[in-house]
Amino acid sequence: MEISLKQASELLERAANIVLTAHIYPDGDSLGSMLALFHSLRAAGKDVTMLLDDDVPKLYQYLPGQEKIVRPRSGLNADLLVVLDASDEERIGAVKTAVFAPILNLDHHLSNTRFADYWYVDAEAAATGEIIFKLLGLMNGKITREIAVCLYTAIATDCGFFRYANTSAATMRYAAELIECGVQPHVIAEHLDTRPLANIILLTKALATLQLYEAGRIATITLSAEMGQITSDNTEGFINYPRNIEGVEIAVLFKVVDTNTVRVSLRSRNVDVSRLALAFGGGGHARAAGCTLNGTLEDAKTKIIGAAVARLKESPV
Amino acid sequence: MEISLKQASELLERAANIVLTAHIYPDGDSLGSMLALFHSLRAAGKDVTMLLDDDVPKLYQYLPGQEKIVRPRSGLNADLLVVLDASDEERIGAVKTAVFAPILNLDHHLSNTRFADYWYVDAEAAATGEIIFKLLGLMNGKITREIAVCLYTAIATDCGFFRYANTSAATMRYAAELIECGVQPHVIAEHLDTRPLANIILLTKALATLQLYEAGRIATITLSAEMGQITSDNTEGFINYPRNIEGVEIAVLFKVVDTNTVRVSLRSRNVDVSRLALAFGGGGHARAAGCTLNGTLEDAKTKIIGAAVARLKESPV
Ligand SMILES: [Mn+2]
Ligand SMILES: [Mn+2]
Repeated sequence: MEISLKQASELLERAANIVLTAHIYPDGDSLGSMLALFHSLRAAGKDVTMLLDDDVPKLYQYLPGQEKIVRPRSGLNADLLVVLDASDEERIGAVKTAVFAPILNLDHHLSNTRFADYWYVDAEAAATGEIIFKLLGLMNGKITREIAVCLYTAIATDCGFFRYANTSAATMRYAAELIECGVQPHVIAEHLDTRPLANIILLTKALATLQLYEAGRIATITLSAEMGQITSDNTEGFINYPRNIEGVEIAVLFKVVDTNTVRVSLRSRNVDVSRLALAFGGGGHARAAGCTLNGTLEDAKTKIIGAAVARLKESPV
Repeated sequence: MEISLKQASELLERAANIVLTAHIYPDGDSLGSMLALFHSLRAAGKDVTMLLDDDVPKLYQYLPGQEKIVRPRSGLNADLLVVLDASDEERIGAVKTAVFAPILNLDHHLSNTRFADYWYVDAEAAATGEIIFKLLGLMNGKITREIAVCLYTAIATDCGFFRYANTSAATMRYAAELIECGVQPHVIAEHLDTRPLANIILLTKALATLQLYEAGRIATITLSAEMGQITSDNTEGFINYPRNIEGVEIAVLFKVVDTNTVRVSLRSRNVDVSRLALAFGGGGHARAAGCTLNGTLEDAKTKIIGAAVARLKESPV
């Protein structure tokens, strides 16, 4: 049943024993939102448990209270299970079957499946952290420095530190209020900019593969297993390097998954690359799309670059 | 004479013929502030000229109106010369002698020399753009989308796109209002993230020189002339790569200027590197400092890394 944020606050106020969870492969928004709500509910005298069917990445271990997040254990009773930043049940892993309680889902994903008993989904919010900020206001909870650090992290990570299209005037005003509650933006930025050594080494190798086509309007980089362990996590942002080069219209990242599979990420400034991805069974948005090709790296390069050249000729910018 | 922002607005209102200028080696703040004031004064019916004793870098050529900025020509009379984002007279180059008019200086540098006839210096402001935003409010000028783009650029560039320590709650609120005036943050971010190809190639070469010392607590990269043209401009931000590596306490960038000169930049997380720089005749802040050494690269490396190791042992973090 769809509820208002006010109704969500009332559900939380009535519950004494509350379990919080968030999506697996946790990011700054899922962790920051869960921790902010945790601190606030604890301050209100509630019995609160945070369950997560995953580890907290090292990157986020500066978040106050993260050491209290535990793995789900089965057969837990509670008055309410709050599911944060997760658009469907599968995203919370084993927590789904471990807790016996009505589910309240607070989320901002357009794709939300409305799986919960009670849901509040605001797809306009740049982050679930924005929803939690408003919720704490309704509950008259004090935003301590700890809570502010969690919410700032939640919001800043989901909007690419105020760089993505979802950054709104409201996003900036939440950030302003959180700074007034004690957040130091440069300290958060330093935490979030920290990268494992392996990541920088992988970036160095990836940049060395840079190739340009069509008088510099297409730029590609390539990642393969012999460069080191490649996860979607540790190569995030790599495609921005070719994309940000002056004059580049289409950027391509080739990821050699195995001898017969190449994953392709596409970015553009103006050209619609989702049509390009679609032609190879993929999809995405106009300026960020992807597809997976069977065959060798050379096959994939020939096909994708050929199609990219054709796209550029169809729609001169 | 020191004046209030209200008095500055009155000076502008009384003047009919106004020349605007900003510091040479222009950045987003100097250009954005000058252009925002230009658009607003023009809308108020003033005769306004923008003079700059330098070129507008390609990076900023998306700023509306930048094509109207001209080089100073001598013997220009005006009612007022407004000097933006410049802390002393030398910073405006030939404009200083080319214009006959009382000078109004609007700036946010702590080091401002109070050289002008009238000055308003707010060292708390993250950017001169913040001062112009407030000034336009006092003058009841409408913030058009064009003006908002200029001011957002001014503010965002001077606070490292909301990442530096000067980012305040007020900074975020100005950004919020400018978004409401039509700024698209992701479009500005894309403009500002654009890099010349040579810059990415130089970064690739610099990253390939990464070396670690003291179990990964010291990280260095090296730039030398054979890697390509090195300016302070095109290597900005390179030192963040070693600095952001997990576990690194002190990051060092060695720049080989000539066979007998090495420029050294230092960054740290906690250790005071200004003391380290001072020992070699340099200086700076606790967490960002620099110095220049005479001798070969190998000499410089031995000395600096030796001193960095000693610093780490003195102040274990
Ligand atoms: Mn989210
Ligand atoms: Mn400035």
